Formats: sequence, C-alpha cells, structure tokens
Amino acid sequence: MKNDLHPGLTIRLFTDQKCFGPGVAELLHRVETEHSLRAAAGAMEMAYSKAWRIVRTAEEALGFRLLHSSTGGKNGGGATLTPEARQFLEAYDRFCEELNAQADSLFRSCFAFYQ
Amino acid sequence: MKNDLHPGLTIRLFTDQKCFGPGVAELLHRVETEHSLRAAAGAMEMAYSKAWRIVRTAEEALGFRLLHSSTGGKNGGGATLTPEARQFLEAYDRFCEELNAQADSLFRSCFAFYQ
Repeated sequence: MKNDLHPGLTIRLFTDQKCFGPGVAELLHRVETEHSLRAAAGAMEMAYSKAWRIVRTAEEALGFRLLHSSTGGKNGGGATLTPEARQFLEAYDRFCEELNAQADSLFRSCFAFYQ
Repeated sequence: MKNDLHPGLTIRLFTDQKCFGPGVAELLHRVETEHSLRAAAGAMEMAYSKAWRIVRTAEEALGFRLLHSSTGGKNGGGATLTPEARQFLEAYDRFCEELNAQADSLFRSCFAFYQ
C-alpha cells in the first residue's frame, strides 16, 4: 500500500456509557503480572485513584467484580482477577485480535485503488 | 446482550502518523454540502485554523489534494472535494460501514457467554 497506509482501530465496549477498552484491559493484564492494582497503575504512569475509578466504573457497568482484593483493599493491597474478569478479558483480547485481522483484509479490498 | 453491551470502534488510517479518521471524514462530508471549509468547520464548532491543519496534514500524508479552493483559498473561499478525495472518502465510508457490521457479528460470537 502506498505510503504504508494501514488501519488502526480503537475498540471499546459500551453499555449506556463507555465501560471497557484498551485502558482497562491493559490494567487487568498488568494486575495479572503485578498482583496489585497500585503497581499496575504505576507501570502505566497512571494515578492509582484513576485506575481504581476505571475498574470500578467497568465493574458497575458490566455487573460483576473484576478484581478480588486479597489484602489491603482500596488502599493498595494485593489484587487478582476474578474468574469472570479473566473470561471477559480473554474474550475482549480475542475480539480485538480477530477484528484487527478482519480490518486488514477488508482494508486491502476497500482501498485496492490506492496502491 | 446483557446491559445492552455492544462494541464501538474508532477507525483511523495511518501512514507513519495518524492521517485520516472520523474528524477529517466529517469535515469532507460537510464541505460537500456547505461548499466551504470555513462553514464546514463552523458546523462542527471547530476553529477554521484547526480544520485547515487537519486537511493539510491528511493531504501531505496521503500524497494528493483533498480540497479544491474555488475562490478565496486559505482565507475561507469556496471549496469542493477533488475527485481523489471523493473516491477516498467513499472507500473510507464503506470500510467503516462493513467493518462495523463485521464487528457486531464477531462480538456476538466472542461474547456469547455474556448473555
């Protein structure tokens, strides 16, 4: 493709409001490795209060808990993903991966003239 | 789907930088009806200088002119889309429409558990 033109998608999920997207997905992935929301937020250079609000907003919209606080709770103790969060995050990752592949294919078809 | 959960995509095109997306597409559609970049920008409550910069950045990245200034030029005279801009905008619109349809279908498959 001329100029290396290619699509780039931002993939979010909405109920009546935005509730899940790249930011909360990255937070959850980092909680899986860091075992702490505070450490996950820090690794993204995000304020802990903002990370906590993003997770809580998503939880309220989705209707289930994403994080299980193992110790310390709101003030930064350990955190793990709930089974529901793992399932949802896996579905979101698969959705993004497959949709990006479909987008690349569709893009080549729609922009075939721009070679 | 529970809570009316549904996907929402932001679809942009990139070369080495962002060069085309919903903003410039809406500007071009409005130029088609308003026959003026200044009027198009005003209808979007966007500063004319910003609209002009968005269009110029896209033109430079894509390698062709998007607007033909019929009179007045940079300072707000009439404007029409070039044939290349029409073709590109049509391709972008079709890409967005078909990708959104594919996203809805894929979403139902990936999130079937969340009913």
